[in-house]
Amino acid sequence: MNPLEQKKFAPVGHKRWAIAEGYIPKTSHGPEPEMTSHESICVLNVSDEETHLQIWIFYSDREPVGPYKVSVGARRTKHIRFNYFKEPEPIPRGTDFASIIESDVPIVVQHTRLDSRQSENALISTIAFADAESVM
Amino acid sequence: MNPLEQKKFAPVGHKRWAIAEGYIPKTSHGPEPEMTSHESICVLNVSDEETHLQIWIFYSDREPVGPYKVSVGARRTKHIRFNYFKEPEPIPRGTDFASIIESDVPIVVQHTRLDSRQSENALISTIAFADAESVM
Amino acid sequence: MNPLEQKKFAPVGHKRWAIAEGYIPKTSHGPEPEMTSHESICVLNVSDEETHLQIWIFYSDREPVGPYKVSVGARRTKHIRFNYFKEPEPIPRGTDFASIIESDVPIVVQHTRLDSRQSENALISTIAFADAESVM
Amino acid sequence: MNPLEQKKFAPVGHKRWAIAEGYIPKTSHGPEPEMTSHESICVLNVSDEETHLQIWIFYSDREPVGPYKVSVGARRTKHIRFNYFKEPEPIPRGTDFASIIESDVPIVVQHTRLDSRQSENALISTIAFADAESVM
Repeated sequence: MNPLEQKKFAPVGHKRWAIAEGYIPKTSHGPEPEMTSHESICVLNVSDEETHLQIWIFYSDREPVGPYKVSVGARRTKHIRFNYFKEPEPIPRGTDFASIIESDVPIVVQHTRLDSRQSENALISTIAFADAESVM
Repeated sequence: MNPLEQKKFAPVGHKRWAIAEGYIPKTSHGPEPEMTSHESICVLNVSDEETHLQIWIFYSDREPVGPYKVSVGARRTKHIRFNYFKEPEPIPRGTDFASIIESDVPIVVQHTRLDSRQSENALISTIAFADAESVM
Repeated sequence: MNPLEQKKFAPVGHKRWAIAEGYIPKTSHGPEPEMTSHESICVLNVSDEETHLQIWIFYSDREPVGPYKVSVGARRTKHIRFNYFKEPEPIPRGTDFASIIESDVPIVVQHTRLDSRQSENALISTIAFADAESVM
Repeated sequence: MNPLEQKKFAPVGHKRWAIAEGYIPKTSHGPEPEMTSHESICVLNVSDEETHLQIWIFYSDREPVGPYKVSVGARRTKHIRFNYFKEPEPIPRGTDFASIIESDVPIVVQHTRLDSRQSENALISTIAFADAESVM
């Protein structure tokens, strides 16, 4: 339908992003997995290269944990739920955290939470903080 | 009442914007179309020229689709619902996506979602990510 | 308690801001005025001068209306509800709009909506878009 | 598990941030303290130095109050509730305010509110406004 093979997208975004807010609620209401309380990062990679993300989780009372490794294909988006992180260790529920996301190529990162602790869900979303002078 | 014809607005915004989060819920509660679950982009064009937007939708598992074409008049705002996109193809419900918005003139883009999957609605909104060095 | 008279705050913010999203819901639930559906801009002026804001409202189908005039004192915040705008004319309910805020001195602007159309309220908030090269 | 002792994080963020919106609701629904209405700032300090924050609260009708002093450890995040501020004085409930956050080292600040005035909670979150040319 569209000659998408030829379309090249100019780079957009940054290689390093920070999210100061993080919290996976302990409880949920509504059908799983759609309405399960979750904290996620949405990544957009418009480049022609797959990127390999390295994510670090910061806590209030112990050293940062990471890197969590996630790939995002060329010209793809990925919505990554912190709930699903396993290696090097799962993120505990009901605990404050923050995160740093590092990428091989410029990406755009948006932070979203679905909170269904009470019977109706609440949502937050914000573009993450872009580190303009990323040195990785 | 106001001699609005004479008022010239200094340009504001950028020519290229990215939104990493996108999702049109499958279900809604409440009166249509006001309370129908939707994902939208609000565009402000303060310039004295109509602008022709080209919007590209990125997916997690296939090539980007576009351009979707939308015009925004001189000194006008337009709130565009992704739900209504038809050409080149509608955006499937219940699917993660991301978007790139390109404009002839500087604009400001804000991303908003109304989620009425559960009986009370939830809202998110954030200024989109501005590509400061847009090459289109 | 604090010798606040002496404290000088370094300037912060910009002189021109844009909000692409705007909508005052037609209906509300809950006690007035606290839970009345509203759209507001929160302004922070850390400077030692009162600032005189000029706000312009943009519509989808007619010319912009303004300026709406609001003052914010030195070292003060003001949370301004679009609902209360009267001169040159009230903003109609249930209508899409956008806004430009111009200030004499650098300010910070945040956009917030309380939507109580359904029985539980929903909230959005985002820092507005700052025009870095404001020419007023 | 990870040799976290060795990992050095490049600096990210700014030394001065502003939040124009602030409001601690008077009432709450749901189990305390998790579902208590609150207004908070999430701070991420990736540096190898503890930072000492100085926070100033601005009001609509009186002089700013501060500094409120909070420390955030090296490589730590802290989610700070305005509700808990005591010195120099508590922030009154049901009152509009704004804030300035100053730090010794670059940090990232995100603003979040949980509003549980009605029976279902609403959430907002946005990256705060970064003062790029901080002079402290």
